[in-house]
Amino acid sequence: MTDRGLSHRESAEVSLLAGGVTSEEFKTAFRNHPAGVAVITAATPEGPVALTATSVVSVSAEPPVLIFSLSALSSATASIRAAETIVVHLLADKDLPVARLCSTSGVDRFADPMTWSPLTTGEPLFHGVESWLRCRIVDRMDAGGSTVVAAQALQASTAGSAEISPLVYHNRGWHHLGAHSELS
Amino acid sequence: MTDRGLSHRESAEVSLLAGGVTSEEFKTAFRNHPAGVAVITAATPEGPVALTATSVVSVSAEPPVLIFSLSALSSATASIRAAETIVVHLLADKDLPVARLCSTSGVDRFADPMTWSPLTTGEPLFHGVESWLRCRIVDRMDAGGSTVVAAQALQASTAGSAEISPLVYHNRGWHHLGAHSELS
Repeated sequence: MTDRGLSHRESAEVSLLAGGVTSEEFKTAFRNHPAGVAVITAATPEGPVALTATSVVSVSAEPPVLIFSLSALSSATASIRAAETIVVHLLADKDLPVARLCSTSGVDRFADPMTWSPLTTGEPLFHGVESWLRCRIVDRMDAGGSTVVAAQALQASTAGSAEISPLVYHNRGWHHLGAHSELS
Repeated sequence: MTDRGLSHRESAEVSLLAGGVTSEEFKTAFRNHPAGVAVITAATPEGPVALTATSVVSVSAEPPVLIFSLSALSSATASIRAAETIVVHLLADKDLPVARLCSTSGVDRFADPMTWSPLTTGEPLFHGVESWLRCRIVDRMDAGGSTVVAAQALQASTAGSAEISPLVYHNRGWHHLGAHSELS
């Protein structure tokens, strides 16, 4: 290592294998890269589908476009990827039960009719989530076995911003933000 | 509104304009969707470039691929988009000065030679950031006037995970995570 400024410890941890970065190293790096939490739903001929996503990012406000990624591992991936329209729920800390429900495999995410209802346009909406966007999927890109989806917002419900304490996913745990987490 | 389950207040805030969602509504929704913070650097024939990004997301661990978006507004966008390789620094709370530096327009982000040095492969590395990935750009997708970039990791430095308190951007402010922000 001839790079200036790297401590001994940093140098020791830098991967210099010819094979590049292992999946374990990559996961370790991203374990410390937190993300907001969303639940994405769609109506399909087989019924409603939902998944929890920590990859939703705004890329443009005019036109209003967001992206997210779909791993091949999720059961709802194929249905969401094929959908024309979706609902992206942006979750607050009080919505943690919805995040948990839609990230648990093997359960019927729509079993309780009190927790959701279809919009007039058909997509399922989970009750109680104040901030959500109904979107049309406008583009898709394959990336490393996953699919990156771009979607344009058609309809929005926004919460009164001051009261919201957003949900954050970090290092396989759930966190929330507020005055307690602010840096001065 | 015939949707079941929407409160009066929610109904009132749902945008039903024929024109869809305004940029202001879209920005308001995403103001409450927090994100981890990264600084992306590249070497160019005109010198090093850097920008702060809150759009870095892991999309696949095998192969190790991440994505981020570049808005047309950032001065470093064209250079990063055209780069073959980049360094993605994943920031902790102690790296806030680097995040601020690289999101301030009109300043030379490499003015202080004590704060950075080039890797042997040429890309600029900001000192003190423990978690970073050197990546090759493998794909690009236009989305709403921005560019979504997919990049595969070639080399990684990961921090000892237990000690890291990650930096989070939320509602135009900086936050950090730790025991104080955990949800039980």
